Amino acid sequence: MDLKTSLPLTSRTAKLERTVIDVKGVQIGGPEPVFMAGPCSIESLSQMREVAHAVKGHAHILRGGAFKPRTSPYSFQGLAEEGLEMLQAVGEEVGLPTVSEVMSPEDVDLVARYVDMLQIGARNMQNYALLRKVGTLRKPVLLKRGIAATIEEWLLSAEYIMSEGNPNVVLCERGIRTFEPLTRNTLDISAVPMVHHLSHLPVVVDPSHAAGAWNLVEPLALAAIAAGADGLMVEVHPHPEAALSDGPQSLLPERYCQLVESARELCTLIVRRQTHA
Amino acid sequence: MDLKTSLPLTSRTAKLERTVIDVKGVQIGGPEPVFMAGPCSIESLSQMREVAHAVKGHAHILRGGAFKPRTSPYSFQGLAEEGLEMLQAVGEEVGLPTVSEVMSPEDVDLVARYVDMLQIGARNMQNYALLRKVGTLRKPVLLKRGIAATIEEWLLSAEYIMSEGNPNVVLCERGIRTFEPLTRNTLDISAVPMVHHLSHLPVVVDPSHAAGAWNLVEPLALAAIAAGADGLMVEVHPHPEAALSDGPQSLLPERYCQLVESARELCTLIVRRQTHA
Amino acid sequence: MDLKTSLPLTSRTAKLERTVIDVKGVQIGGPEPVFMAGPCSIESLSQMREVAHAVKGHAHILRGGAFKPRTSPYSFQGLAEEGLEMLQAVGEEVGLPTVSEVMSPEDVDLVARYVDMLQIGARNMQNYALLRKVGTLRKPVLLKRGIAATIEEWLLSAEYIMSEGNPNVVLCERGIRTFEPLTRNTLDISAVPMVHHLSHLPVVVDPSHAAGAWNLVEPLALAAIAAGADGLMVEVHPHPEAALSDGPQSLLPERYCQLVESARELCTLIVRRQTHA
Amino acid sequence: MDLKTSLPLTSRTAKLERTVIDVKGVQIGGPEPVFMAGPCSIESLSQMREVAHAVKGHAHILRGGAFKPRTSPYSFQGLAEEGLEMLQAVGEEVGLPTVSEVMSPEDVDLVARYVDMLQIGARNMQNYALLRKVGTLRKPVLLKRGIAATIEEWLLSAEYIMSEGNPNVVLCERGIRTFEPLTRNTLDISAVPMVHHLSHLPVVVDPSHAAGAWNLVEPLALAAIAAGADGLMVEVHPHPEAALSDGPQSLLPERYCQLVESARELCTLIVRRQTHA
Repeated sequence: MDLKTSLPLTSRTAKLERTVIDVKGVQIGGPEPVFMAGPCSIESLSQMREVAHAVKGHAHILRGGAFKPRTSPYSFQGLAEEGLEMLQAVGEEVGLPTVSEVMSPEDVDLVARYVDMLQIGARNMQNYALLRKVGTLRKPVLLKRGIAATIEEWLLSAEYIMSEGNPNVVLCERGIRTFEPLTRNTLDISAVPMVHHLSHLPVVVDPSHAAGAWNLVEPLALAAIAAGADGLMVEVHPHPEAALSDGPQSLLPERYCQLVESARELCTLIVRRQTHA
Repeated sequence: MDLKTSLPLTSRTAKLERTVIDVKGVQIGGPEPVFMAGPCSIESLSQMREVAHAVKGHAHILRGGAFKPRTSPYSFQGLAEEGLEMLQAVGEEVGLPTVSEVMSPEDVDLVARYVDMLQIGARNMQNYALLRKVGTLRKPVLLKRGIAATIEEWLLSAEYIMSEGNPNVVLCERGIRTFEPLTRNTLDISAVPMVHHLSHLPVVVDPSHAAGAWNLVEPLALAAIAAGADGLMVEVHPHPEAALSDGPQSLLPERYCQLVESARELCTLIVRRQTHA
Repeated sequence: MDLKTSLPLTSRTAKLERTVIDVKGVQIGGPEPVFMAGPCSIESLSQMREVAHAVKGHAHILRGGAFKPRTSPYSFQGLAEEGLEMLQAVGEEVGLPTVSEVMSPEDVDLVARYVDMLQIGARNMQNYALLRKVGTLRKPVLLKRGIAATIEEWLLSAEYIMSEGNPNVVLCERGIRTFEPLTRNTLDISAVPMVHHLSHLPVVVDPSHAAGAWNLVEPLALAAIAAGADGLMVEVHPHPEAALSDGPQSLLPERYCQLVESARELCTLIVRRQTHA
Repeated sequence: MDLKTSLPLTSRTAKLERTVIDVKGVQIGGPEPVFMAGPCSIESLSQMREVAHAVKGHAHILRGGAFKPRTSPYSFQGLAEEGLEMLQAVGEEVGLPTVSEVMSPEDVDLVARYVDMLQIGARNMQNYALLRKVGTLRKPVLLKRGIAATIEEWLLSAEYIMSEGNPNVVLCERGIRTFEPLTRNTLDISAVPMVHHLSHLPVVVDPSHAAGAWNLVEPLALAAIAAGADGLMVEVHPHPEAALSDGPQSLLPERYCQLVESARELCTLIVRRQTHA
């Protein structure tokens, strides 16, 4: 763990107290964990409304993808601006701030007009032009860890954003690529305490992409809370079997709400340190 | 997750209800998680006694290594039979059953005379002669996952033991090898619910070897309990800075006891399923 | 190897004969392997001239980085357009076509004005906006494999370029991330015959980034040629100890020229198939 | 590459000149590469005779497995001593020395009575009791690299053998476990020059297990020779479709013989250094 000493030297934005990021009134990195929920892809207004109303009492932030990074150019690519309009409308209807992915520097201003938090996906963790561009705004950024990024590389990607002037970065662990074929990715649960050890930034966990299967989401989510995560991002779909992307790893709204109940109970036991060790 | 259907076909020992393994009265796989603690290496009688008395109220099983698998032939190789005598004497003194590693078929009978549970280490997970040999006994076996073993390979190694007639196998997740250099290994927390999904066998977690650093042990241990692990195996040393092996990842006895207190509180919230999903 | 049948289904640009890509008269994918050489970063006009004159008899294409993707925002980021001017001038002076990396859709037109081939780096292999943008041109593209990309994902990234109308894609294997710490990356030599098996596109090898150390470059380069690679891209610097990036893996010009001599001899023995198996 | 200095400190058997190992008159590590061929499993006397007669003019050593390490206890486990008798008889008939795997310390003396070289398989690379046992003999040992072993760990396993008094160790690279699913393993071709850099021991390559598919074997084999390997071990079966193990990666004898012809031509161009760099 030689980073303990070396990172403060490379980071020009190091500080001792934990940073709390405000997303339209929701505090990420404070005493309470934050829950973000919604479908992988925004598919229609009725789908978004159904999810949003089902989760609104159990979520702080509404998620939904409008620009979708897909391995194949022939897969569904998302509804783009039309999707963002739906997300914004539904967010206002249920009174939740919103988060959505942006994939290209050219789209940053567009996406930023519609959502309260910008997500940088795993494939773009080292898309430096994109990182610099979101760094010129003050809007909070959710920076997912790359599928094969070391924790050091991930923190240095956060530096790209912060060094441009935007200090509002939330890290998101979502699983790394290993040899194990039974899970879509391997959730690196150690990344949660390690980030708290090395950095002042909050770190949340996305158990859905790590697992790739809905029945692993709950145990991984509870593990993340127990390890000290500052929040969860969970894929929820009212009809997973009909989802245009990531159906197998999406929770039904009622299971998601039960999960949040369990996570909240767990939190009463986990004392989350407010300075990084 | 095609194993759901395929493993019952390959396993001749499949069953629906969860298996509970009895180690001299300690139940592994039952409603309460089991805590195993002790030093990496047995170094002296006084060291073992110091650890054992410090943890006895917070542990169910006492661990200590007498035969040590070391990467280099020039590293400390363990006290062998002399160490086993110390472990047995101290176990009896504090009233705890014991577990210790066996590395070779030739040593199985020797180790089995002294301890209550035989440990197969990660390097030997596919040492089939050793697996077959411990399969001929009825003594419980703790089977660690190989550093690069898939979950399927791990379960098939358990089959080697069970197919020889010994059904008393407890699996132990201890981290897998990935590209991340900050942790010694990457704890595959998903393995806990996946094993419960695919197998009737109990699975415990060793956070010490996964982390490689004492300050990650507590969050990883709590994560394991939250994910449904049937127990923990934790390295504890009264003087980590003087340990002959694995000092940096060893907890002081008082921190270990606090960890167990936290884990027990957590358990009151985690409903552990008694059939595998 | 189920891709044999599935990729032609997903690829709308499949064909049976091998594709030969023309870079200003240099044929990549034909009977002779193509050698690309130059420094990691363009540092000055004199540096570029020194390298170019030293390698011109042993290289078909001159490389040099002007936009540098660096893990840390505080590392040297390249000379940008100033560097491209140097590369273009020196390329014309020695009569070699040029290749340089482009990192952002916004820079594509700029870079395309100066160079004969656009390089997409490993970090940007799934930067889909960038892939689509270079797909709208007809200029040849060198697509490096992502550090943790499967061969299937790599071929599907090539599809992003081709499906926009640009068929001139050359693949470049440059090492993948594994647990082995002694090499910077692990050269996946199997990727060469596997790409030839699955795709009609040419594939070249970059032994410099895979090795991370100059003294491994020659054996890896010869191995690549023996495995059937359609060319090599090698980092060459006249003063590696003073290089602003990647000095330790850069060859001195004279060693590079010896390497090309050896590779050419080797080629006389390797019959490179002109249809993909 | 910090091992350059550190390994000579940990190795008590370091030396400057390359070691040449003699297997009943065959020199491994000398100026000519050595070819070992035969079926994965010894299945019958007629199968062994068919292979042996077909390859005898193109092989220096005959291989065949009698004790087979199989992931599942319900797979074919090999013919054991009966198989060794067949191997010995056929080896004498065609005038080739033999190599076969030994999996347990208890079997070492038995296997050593029948074969000229003992193979330690990838799963047993850190089976220290087995390493020590073969270290007490003088018979040559072929030590395969573990599926997730670092090069340093592999060399230290060789130390286990040598430190017991047996200096006759040949290393065998056979692919490591990575995330890439299209190949069975990823051949780490860099291991060849790296071993030559760090150690005085010969290193051969097994392209069959790395590839997992016969049509990749030839390009990988030629790559290995070009990278400086001291030999090849190739699986050959007269009827791969009927093989009891590893059929898909086995070459037909005639293809194997063509491969050796190509490899020998290649060797005339590769100058193999006789001191380690």
